[in-house]
Amino acid sequence: MKLPGQEGCSVDSTYESVPTGELDSGPGSGPSPGGSSDTDSRELGVLKDPLLFIQLNELLGWPQALEWKETGRWVLFEEKLEVGGGRWSVPHVPTLALPSLQKLRSLLTEGLVLLDCPAQSLLELVEQVTRVESLSPELRGQLQSLLLQRPQHLIQTTGTRLCWGSAHPREASFDEEAPLKEQRQNALRQKLPPGAEAGAVLAGELGFLAQPMGAFVRLRDPVVLGPLTEVPLPSRFFCLLLGPPTLGRSYHEMGRAVAVLLSDSQFQWSVRRANNLHDLLAALDAFLEEVTVLPPGRWDPTARISPPKCLPSQYKRLPLQMQEVKDRTAASGAPAEDSRGHPAQALSTELQRTGRLFGGLAQDVRRKAPWYPSDFLDALHPQCFSTVLYIYLATITNAITFGGLLGEATEGAQGVLESFLGTAVAGAAFCLMAGQPLTILSSTGPVLVFERLLFSFSRDYSLDYLPFRLWVGIWVATFCLVLVATEASVLVRYFTQFTEEGFCALISLIFIYDALGKMLSLTRAYPIQWSSSPAYGCFCQYPYPGGNDSQWTRTKPKDRDDILSMDLGLVNASLLPPPECVRRGGHPRGPGCHTVPDIAFFSLLLFFTSFLVAMALRHVKTSRFFPSVVRKVLSDFSSVLAILLGCGLDAFLGLATPKLTVPREFKPTLPGRDWLVSPFGTNPWWLSVAAALPALLLSILIFMDQQITAVILNRAEYRLRKGAGFHLDLFCVAVLMLLTSALGLPWYVSATVISLAHMESLRRESRACAPGGALSFQGIREQRLTGLVVFILTGISIFLAPILKFIPMPVLYGIFLYMGVAAISSIQFTKRVQLLLMPAKHQPDLLLLRHVPLSRVHLFTAIQLACLGLLWIVKSTPAAIIFPIMLLGLVGVRKALEWVFSPQELLWLDELMPEKESSIPEKGQEPEYSFSGSDRKDISVLQSELMYQPKAPEINISVN
Amino acid sequence: MKLPGQEGCSVDSTYESVPTGELDSGPGSGPSPGGSSDTDSRELGVLKDPLLFIQLNELLGWPQALEWKETGRWVLFEEKLEVGGGRWSVPHVPTLALPSLQKLRSLLTEGLVLLDCPAQSLLELVEQVTRVESLSPELRGQLQSLLLQRPQHLIQTTGTRLCWGSAHPREASFDEEAPLKEQRQNALRQKLPPGAEAGAVLAGELGFLAQPMGAFVRLRDPVVLGPLTEVPLPSRFFCLLLGPPTLGRSYHEMGRAVAVLLSDSQFQWSVRRANNLHDLLAALDAFLEEVTVLPPGRWDPTARISPPKCLPSQYKRLPLQMQEVKDRTAASGAPAEDSRGHPAQALSTELQRTGRLFGGLAQDVRRKAPWYPSDFLDALHPQCFSTVLYIYLATITNAITFGGLLGEATEGAQGVLESFLGTAVAGAAFCLMAGQPLTILSSTGPVLVFERLLFSFSRDYSLDYLPFRLWVGIWVATFCLVLVATEASVLVRYFTQFTEEGFCALISLIFIYDALGKMLSLTRAYPIQWSSSPAYGCFCQYPYPGGNDSQWTRTKPKDRDDILSMDLGLVNASLLPPPECVRRGGHPRGPGCHTVPDIAFFSLLLFFTSFLVAMALRHVKTSRFFPSVVRKVLSDFSSVLAILLGCGLDAFLGLATPKLTVPREFKPTLPGRDWLVSPFGTNPWWLSVAAALPALLLSILIFMDQQITAVILNRAEYRLRKGAGFHLDLFCVAVLMLLTSALGLPWYVSATVISLAHMESLRRESRACAPGGALSFQGIREQRLTGLVVFILTGISIFLAPILKFIPMPVLYGIFLYMGVAAISSIQFTKRVQLLLMPAKHQPDLLLLRHVPLSRVHLFTAIQLACLGLLWIVKSTPAAIIFPIMLLGLVGVRKALEWVFSPQELLWLDELMPEKESSIPEKGQEPEYSFSGSDRKDISVLQSELMYQPKAPEINISVN
Repeated sequence: MKLPGQEGCSVDSTYESVPTGELDSGPGSGPSPGGSSDTDSRELGVLKDPLLFIQLNELLGWPQALEWKETGRWVLFEEKLEVGGGRWSVPHVPTLALPSLQKLRSLLTEGLVLLDCPAQSLLELVEQVTRVESLSPELRGQLQSLLLQRPQHLIQTTGTRLCWGSAHPREASFDEEAPLKEQRQNALRQKLPPGAEAGAVLAGELGFLAQPMGAFVRLRDPVVLGPLTEVPLPSRFFCLLLGPPTLGRSYHEMGRAVAVLLSDSQFQWSVRRANNLHDLLAALDAFLEEVTVLPPGRWDPTARISPPKCLPSQYKRLPLQMQEVKDRTAASGAPAEDSRGHPAQALSTELQRTGRLFGGLAQDVRRKAPWYPSDFLDALHPQCFSTVLYIYLATITNAITFGGLLGEATEGAQGVLESFLGTAVAGAAFCLMAGQPLTILSSTGPVLVFERLLFSFSRDYSLDYLPFRLWVGIWVATFCLVLVATEASVLVRYFTQFTEEGFCALISLIFIYDALGKMLSLTRAYPIQWSSSPAYGCFCQYPYPGGNDSQWTRTKPKDRDDILSMDLGLVNASLLPPPECVRRGGHPRGPGCHTVPDIAFFSLLLFFTSFLVAMALRHVKTSRFFPSVVRKVLSDFSSVLAILLGCGLDAFLGLATPKLTVPREFKPTLPGRDWLVSPFGTNPWWLSVAAALPALLLSILIFMDQQITAVILNRAEYRLRKGAGFHLDLFCVAVLMLLTSALGLPWYVSATVISLAHMESLRRESRACAPGGALSFQGIREQRLTGLVVFILTGISIFLAPILKFIPMPVLYGIFLYMGVAAISSIQFTKRVQLLLMPAKHQPDLLLLRHVPLSRVHLFTAIQLACLGLLWIVKSTPAAIIFPIMLLGLVGVRKALEWVFSPQELLWLDELMPEKESSIPEKGQEPEYSFSGSDRKDISVLQSELMYQPKAPEINISVN
Repeated sequence: MKLPGQEGCSVDSTYESVPTGELDSGPGSGPSPGGSSDTDSRELGVLKDPLLFIQLNELLGWPQALEWKETGRWVLFEEKLEVGGGRWSVPHVPTLALPSLQKLRSLLTEGLVLLDCPAQSLLELVEQVTRVESLSPELRGQLQSLLLQRPQHLIQTTGTRLCWGSAHPREASFDEEAPLKEQRQNALRQKLPPGAEAGAVLAGELGFLAQPMGAFVRLRDPVVLGPLTEVPLPSRFFCLLLGPPTLGRSYHEMGRAVAVLLSDSQFQWSVRRANNLHDLLAALDAFLEEVTVLPPGRWDPTARISPPKCLPSQYKRLPLQMQEVKDRTAASGAPAEDSRGHPAQALSTELQRTGRLFGGLAQDVRRKAPWYPSDFLDALHPQCFSTVLYIYLATITNAITFGGLLGEATEGAQGVLESFLGTAVAGAAFCLMAGQPLTILSSTGPVLVFERLLFSFSRDYSLDYLPFRLWVGIWVATFCLVLVATEASVLVRYFTQFTEEGFCALISLIFIYDALGKMLSLTRAYPIQWSSSPAYGCFCQYPYPGGNDSQWTRTKPKDRDDILSMDLGLVNASLLPPPECVRRGGHPRGPGCHTVPDIAFFSLLLFFTSFLVAMALRHVKTSRFFPSVVRKVLSDFSSVLAILLGCGLDAFLGLATPKLTVPREFKPTLPGRDWLVSPFGTNPWWLSVAAALPALLLSILIFMDQQITAVILNRAEYRLRKGAGFHLDLFCVAVLMLLTSALGLPWYVSATVISLAHMESLRRESRACAPGGALSFQGIREQRLTGLVVFILTGISIFLAPILKFIPMPVLYGIFLYMGVAAISSIQFTKRVQLLLMPAKHQPDLLLLRHVPLSRVHLFTAIQLACLGLLWIVKSTPAAIIFPIMLLGLVGVRKALEWVFSPQELLWLDELMPEKESSIPEKGQEPEYSFSGSDRKDISVLQSELMYQPKAPEINISVN
């Protein structure tokens, strides 16, 4: 369920800020008795109370067949026993009725409260709890035996079969307190983190009691209370709520109220430290102070609310002195709570200018060197195997697609073989040397576009492409080294979302346009045959009547065409298909000889099929079908599967669709060239100097493409420990530029999508997970080995090349279209363009729209559209090659926008540029909107919204 | 936002049970002072309090620039002013903090409470409110002038432009109390029903006050308080909450609390009748008793909850005596609250057996006759025009599709012309005579399937089809008359969802299978040309060498083929396309002469395009884009638009795809037959007797098809006033059967989807609608005129036939596939089949799954699948024609299921069959699941779930 106002969190659950509410909240280590002083920055110096599993056992069947039955359980959220359905409900936010909390309060006030009870077993506990004056000895005995009865649990064992624990509860003896087999097999147990404790709530109506009886026990040492709880955890809390039958299910509701209270971290914290009844009631009152109330006429109390993607911050609920401790820790640079992911905030240390030549590079090397051994040792985990498989498949899909496209764009100057070789060499080298080894080097869209432009430029002026390209590469490497030397990477802080989106949108549109254009040109190459057109039919004519023909009739006397020819008396012609005709020495004659029927429409079908299948598989991840593993595989490998399907379809029908051109042996695609590109070829010498001009443009492009990816990967929400290496990365790219240019291989920079996928697949997540709660994110396995192995495998795959010639080009175009559409639909800009088409009433409840007037949002979008239109126009003119400069111009436009929009508006629509950042807190909200006397509050609300409802991470910023 | 546990409501918002909470809730007319005793059954004898519009004006800008600003408003839900965004928020369920309610309570206790205040203007009111002892005269004056200040409203005028009402509020004089221009233009005003009243809440912090000041006023006579509220409604309530600045925004929250309280129907009812402060506080306490509480750690108080599709029933909140009144009213047969739509419950009067021959028919005629004049007068409403257009387009789309398919199925014995003629004649006659004139007669899927089987049977035995069919028709009419005479229609109560779903699923599968099969056979008719195959190329040979040829060369000397022929020295052959060749007297020779290139794949493209476009357009209705009118048009006309698109594509490329066969003049499609079918033809005489056997099968089919539609249309949730006519409808169908058989026209019964669409388009809905609230459903415009006009127009459209020959068959197959897929995806059976593929964890929170164990659900689904498999096998054997009996057998299977499943399970999985129905309340829940002492409560919960969370109406039960 997606709740309004949380759109920031819910775009992709894997990116969400981890709900640390339960695990590391609760006030700090200062006043905690005996807490271990954990100084890990993630814990922010705050003690971690054990996770509590709370279970409600209800007494049912009065008066005939009394039995205890587990009817609810809580860890983070509530799970209710679906009595009819015999299953646990979907985890949901618990809702209570206010009277049940008030009744509970009065019952506790009158009842028994034992804090730090020394009981060591259920028997001792029951004895202590029933030592109440109002009970007669006989009643006490009855009650004790009742409390010792084994309760019925609905246990889901690891085989996902559900069974009722202890089918004959009344007969069971309670002597052995060892956990039952079902309890130990409980699948829930594996989910709960080590150290978790249990809380048992027993509630129900008991006819022989004269008055209500309440008991709340905190055990001094938590013990496993036999089969009382479904999970054999040591119990810390025990609560008993019994009484004579009343109207309504009040004991059930009171039991739920206790359970919900105990599952609240703040209440739990207080009650773990409570010294007497007064403290307990104070904690309850504090809870009541903070509850949210829904009016009865507008809300059905039986409706269930799905767990929100983002839990509310427990920060605001801390006592004041604790908040200060946290604030101080946060200010010292620990990124844990800042999930907004603004580079300028998160990357402060990495992106500070040293002022020395190559100072940044030296700093990067110093920062990364100590981690180098661990970069290999940290990879020793089974998770890395699946990462290697996944990224390997993604990498070769990329290599095939881009290799094929590059081969077309450069008319065979480069091709699939170069793509494989280059990817393997450059990727492996980068993994070994780079500052951020998690990034995966790949041919990316922008560089491909530039290479296409460069090629058409050199063709227009009849230049020798590869030598010219070598010089461009040499110059780019030089410029990049200058950028490294001058620490230009610190400028990435000026690349705001506006720039990223302009970059991404332009490249995506080029992809979409090219994919469609290529399909269209394909239908021109294989024209459709109109039956009414005269361009119909084709003879096979033999040059010498009576000559070759007799020889041919001799070789294939049984051929049908042959017979036909004889029939007609046309010995010097037949109806062989053109290729066969040529092979046999004939000449195809006739207007239909150059048309291959059916290819055009079949190519279209392949194109749309691969596009739609890839799109559909991508969305499988969020569907309800199949186990999550299957869904993940299907959506992770969507492109691979779509390509395989397309190849299968094509092979099945066996039509002569245009296929990927693959060389038959291991030598450069361009015939007759060495691996090493000659420095001049047929070009004049001065071209090596003139190449500096396009190189300047390409340098801009490579800088932007590389650094935007690096910024995204090094965002704070990924909690990288080993630091970034912006300067070192750029240095590596420059060196590899030189290498690939010299060998005539494609150019490489870090690719966003595949790098993010790499990182995502290396997430360390604690298995400790409560039903309905999100996985607890522990960090990324930062290492160099997975990438290295992937690229070694890619290198080996060069020998797969003969298989690749079965891939039809329309399928690759389809994947190309898919990449463009996927990239453009992932950016916020697209969402804002969609807003233009939506009536205000139907617009989604975006945070953006709450804080910026719609007309201003539309103005911003319109400006972006105008920039994009201008870029497109430039791209379509002969001056297309200068588009990198235009892209850089976006930074200038963004700067100029500061005169049009207020900083608040830009904060929501984009991000702030470095200088402005510090001035915001002073400015606060605009005066006309301020609420008297509560300005501070408002700002803190704004800030908390910023902090806990982060914008969606832009994961598909660049097309790889 | 879709909430779990409400899936029943949210399938289609137009079907939801109308939230009557605000409009006709509140306790009954008995104790109400001066309430008009409305005896309309929909009101259930309960007084309707006026709707209340509540507005919160906040005092901002202390101390420099005090001004009142509207920051929130409530009708059903809360709308908050988005300060930054300058717009009203999306309506949402209001959430409160508990302390603000408690603070409000104490402020009211100490403050001023004026009930039935006689003030006639704002000035008087302000004077009364400020007459507090604690205020010094000076302060009083300051306060009065402050309260008289004109507040700032964010007003959305009808042009959907937003503007700030009264831009210079502080200067404005308050003398004239006439509503401002912006107020009168307020778009919200048109939405609110006549008689609505306003409540104004003024809250804020005022530094010069020494102590908090609260006032609650109920005006004796509501008056428009000048520009105080954004809508110039007479105000009934006025609440003032002012005080010295405090920590937090407590006055804002208290103001919201008052507003939320006033927007609660129960509180409002009490406070309208309160006599003193005590009553007011009691109402507040009653509200507190019923609130739902969300724990702070699991719920972010700033999150907004979208309005639930179903508001909670206010029934349970009524005082006990009022509940009894309602119960009695409900028991007397008023269907208003029963939205579950079980036919046996809702149609009790229409489906009671009289025991006399034709007794039911006579009763139907008696019931419907008095309404006859109004059946024409009620159509005089502009809404009926758009209905006619919509249903006309749907009807001719149907007529074209089914006519085309029938023409193919019967190899030209019938066709599009017959389809148009038959639809017009039968439809118009039915509209004039039938018991339920809202149903639209159409060729339906099941009858088409049967007709296809009948034709292939008669072809296999070389029978003369139309005369044989005539006798089948005569016998069907006879059998139907017997069914009418014996009042067999009362048996429809045995058609539970199980039967309906089996029926629908089988027919849908046949549609899907046929559509795909026809496409496949099309690719066989237009084979793909493999370039490597020898079946390539085609000569055009002239029979007499030197003969015809010279004549041909003479006529077209410049032809390219001609030249080619000369070149080759082949004067007796050319490369003309086959049709052209034949036209010129030649013979096409060669293996490729019978293949038309490109047609196969182009047809596939057309097929998928029309299917996908129709599917996509269907979902446009629920998208966020475009105004609702556009979305409605796009999705209502999805088939028409998809057909038009397909035709456009086909015409654009101009390929020789197979087209719809349309006669060139107004005569039967079968050449050489009269309109009147001869009774015997070439068939033996005894065939007229033997036809009784297939007729029996067809009668079963027609009975089921007709009555299932009728049951769905007459469901209680549509609130039809003029009653049903099951017997009369069947009688009409029988008579028309005779007519259409005699004329050789297709057979017709009522079609579910199109009839429901007809009814939906005739919904009367009150414009009174609060933001976030659903439209208030007032009933259906029951009349005969719209249907009649539609069929007259269809009759006229026969002359459109020449245009229809441009429709390619693959497009029709695509629409056919779309119909099958749409029908099968709308039934609950499909949802249950999907459950088989979902891991339990990811299953949707269906009510069904809460109450029936998953294994039982799967067992039920498996049995249905087995039945379906059996039906399919029968359908595929030569005994296919007996499938109607097998369909009827489903009723028997369903009966047998009572031994396998408990009544509770069947209640959730299906419906109950008539006999069992009465026994349920006694049986209650199964003992093992009962909660001690609270059985009654549980059943009432179960019942309320049944009542207020109805299952989704099965709208696409049958394919039309």
